[in-house]
Amino acid sequence: MSRAISFQVLAEAGAARAGRLQTPHGEVQTPAFMPVGTYGTVKGLTPEDLQELGAQIILANAFHLWVRPGPELIGQLGGLHGFMAWSGPILTDSGGFQVFSLREFSKLTELGARVRTPLDGQHRLLTPEISIAAQETLGVDIAMALDECIEWPADRDRVQRSTQRTTRWLKRGLAHRRRPDRTALLGIVQGGFFEDLRREHAAELVDLDLDAYAIGGLSVGEPTEQMLGMVEVTAPLLPRDRLRYLMGVGYPIDIIEAVTRGVDVFDCVIPTRSGRFGQVFTQRGRLNIKHARMRTDPLPLDPGCTCYTCRAFSRAYLRHLFLSNEILAPRLLSLHNLTFYQRFMARIRQAIPSGSAALEALRREALGWMSRHEDE
Amino acid sequence: MSRAISFQVLAEAGAARAGRLQTPHGEVQTPAFMPVGTYGTVKGLTPEDLQELGAQIILANAFHLWVRPGPELIGQLGGLHGFMAWSGPILTDSGGFQVFSLREFSKLTELGARVRTPLDGQHRLLTPEISIAAQETLGVDIAMALDECIEWPADRDRVQRSTQRTTRWLKRGLAHRRRPDRTALLGIVQGGFFEDLRREHAAELVDLDLDAYAIGGLSVGEPTEQMLGMVEVTAPLLPRDRLRYLMGVGYPIDIIEAVTRGVDVFDCVIPTRSGRFGQVFTQRGRLNIKHARMRTDPLPLDPGCTCYTCRAFSRAYLRHLFLSNEILAPRLLSLHNLTFYQRFMARIRQAIPSGSAALEALRREALGWMSRHEDE
Repeated sequence: MSRAISFQVLAEAGAARAGRLQTPHGEVQTPAFMPVGTYGTVKGLTPEDLQELGAQIILANAFHLWVRPGPELIGQLGGLHGFMAWSGPILTDSGGFQVFSLREFSKLTELGARVRTPLDGQHRLLTPEISIAAQETLGVDIAMALDECIEWPADRDRVQRSTQRTTRWLKRGLAHRRRPDRTALLGIVQGGFFEDLRREHAAELVDLDLDAYAIGGLSVGEPTEQMLGMVEVTAPLLPRDRLRYLMGVGYPIDIIEAVTRGVDVFDCVIPTRSGRFGQVFTQRGRLNIKHARMRTDPLPLDPGCTCYTCRAFSRAYLRHLFLSNEILAPRLLSLHNLTFYQRFMARIRQAIPSGSAALEALRREALGWMSRHEDE
Repeated sequence: MSRAISFQVLAEAGAARAGRLQTPHGEVQTPAFMPVGTYGTVKGLTPEDLQELGAQIILANAFHLWVRPGPELIGQLGGLHGFMAWSGPILTDSGGFQVFSLREFSKLTELGARVRTPLDGQHRLLTPEISIAAQETLGVDIAMALDECIEWPADRDRVQRSTQRTTRWLKRGLAHRRRPDRTALLGIVQGGFFEDLRREHAAELVDLDLDAYAIGGLSVGEPTEQMLGMVEVTAPLLPRDRLRYLMGVGYPIDIIEAVTRGVDVFDCVIPTRSGRFGQVFTQRGRLNIKHARMRTDPLPLDPGCTCYTCRAFSRAYLRHLFLSNEILAPRLLSLHNLTFYQRFMARIRQAIPSGSAALEALRREALGWMSRHEDE
């Protein structure tokens, strides 16, 4: 079998890895952060913007695109790459987490998830087969297997039954692949917050020799330490030469904590969603552009930043845009925040070959960014 | 007195003029269209976008900026040019039309307009002196005198009294100028829909030897023919070597009709507002991106267009963005519509030296654009 993707570790510092992912749509240097383009658009930004700010790979959501406008239409219009005019690698989430988010509107059976989508009130059946077929029709570089994602806390018995179902669904997805040479399949390690179940599930998935692995079932409401504990348990169980993905994480500090535990790739809505709500990441901490202190502030958001927003505009102007409900504001703030994230990932990639001390220095810096700049 | 601006006619075709406006922030080729940046931002677009799509001069609104964030703040932050990072010429509307729009919340006296702004419910007094001072503090290239704008229809007596007040206000504004070398003052010819009052007012304003002239009090609800009739009466009364501005006009057909009657510069929210509502201008007529026919349409909005939107995206994708309420949609549609307008103005400028027949051919084309493309 010719795999769609390959992954190579280039340097290590403890459990942290700097690597290179090869995909049908180009290379990705890891650790990497994927901007979130749920509906085939990173909110407010063009593919041109994303390229300029240093995004190498983006995430889209197969579930949302399956509901609207449908994978067949996108397939006819050049696949997701052509449809959204992004020529770099794309990874799609399968919908497991969306089914979880919509659990009040969903009914899970062994066959799959029957979901009533709030968008139109229609009932739809999502199965492991439909999910992989949809993602292959989208023509993405990396598809994710449909998994069952459950709440936290959940008892051991429930987690075990759910994890076994995830394995059965994964095998059905694997059996239904048509284009393994074009679209890689990523399996999701479950097992909740039970170490033995994580070990057991990781071993099962490693036996299946998958293209890439995600550490799943996290960021569902648990404390960060528990999340990182499960990453620490799971990552070393995965093959060294396969990409490891932690979904929906997070703040810069969470990302670097997971990198030091062996994760390679991340996605999160934080930089774009924060931007839409006026929250800004800077080297000196987070700031809220709506804060009264910004009213007359002639400085750029982050004086060390080279993004267009920081090159062209003052905090005072951006605050004015924000308070005037101008749609340029979310665009400019998202552009800055994503630039901040990409620059952070580049610094992580540079730190790893220098060793654990360089990574630790960066971790401390990222911890400092959690403080609020305007409270100084 | 050293004037801030100068204007030169380069070619004529009947009453139509192709010209060159010189301002402290650069040259403008006329006839020109000014994108509307009410709050110091053309909705959704950056100054970089505006430059790329060919905008030479933009309009902002001194009234809105006076209410929020205030001219003093903008003055401290590099004037409106520095504040919004637009290095080209800026013209500001004085607020006469806004007072008219807010007439339910306004009380006019000889002193000025007392306006209760819906934004914050506060009462504010706008006088001719305050208006010119605010615009000079903004540091714009062309300020407009505060005028009284009245409803249509209005009786002759009311129009006459209002026009006389506009003249008195203009003289107060003129007397209050501090930087005539940096900020030009544009006077507004009123007179409602009475030819003799238009003639009388134009003569008064020409006597004052102003930097530039607007034909005011139009687009207040009257039929287009009446509007154009008043333009036809008024334009020839104005000095040949002064810029002539028709406010708030319009569709391409309205613009070219006014050009053939001697107008040089225009502004209108139509291209940006239409874009935000999914209406698109094309060489084959207007289309609504939400229309079911666009669902699978692989073509760009306008196959002849070279804007980023048309280079990168299909109608099907743009419809998907629009139906998903993605903020990239208004951005991309506004970018296209403004590109369409700028290209149209460039063609008008090219047609004028070729003579009236070339202009008439373009007028017929613009008339065709009023039809609906998707109804074919």
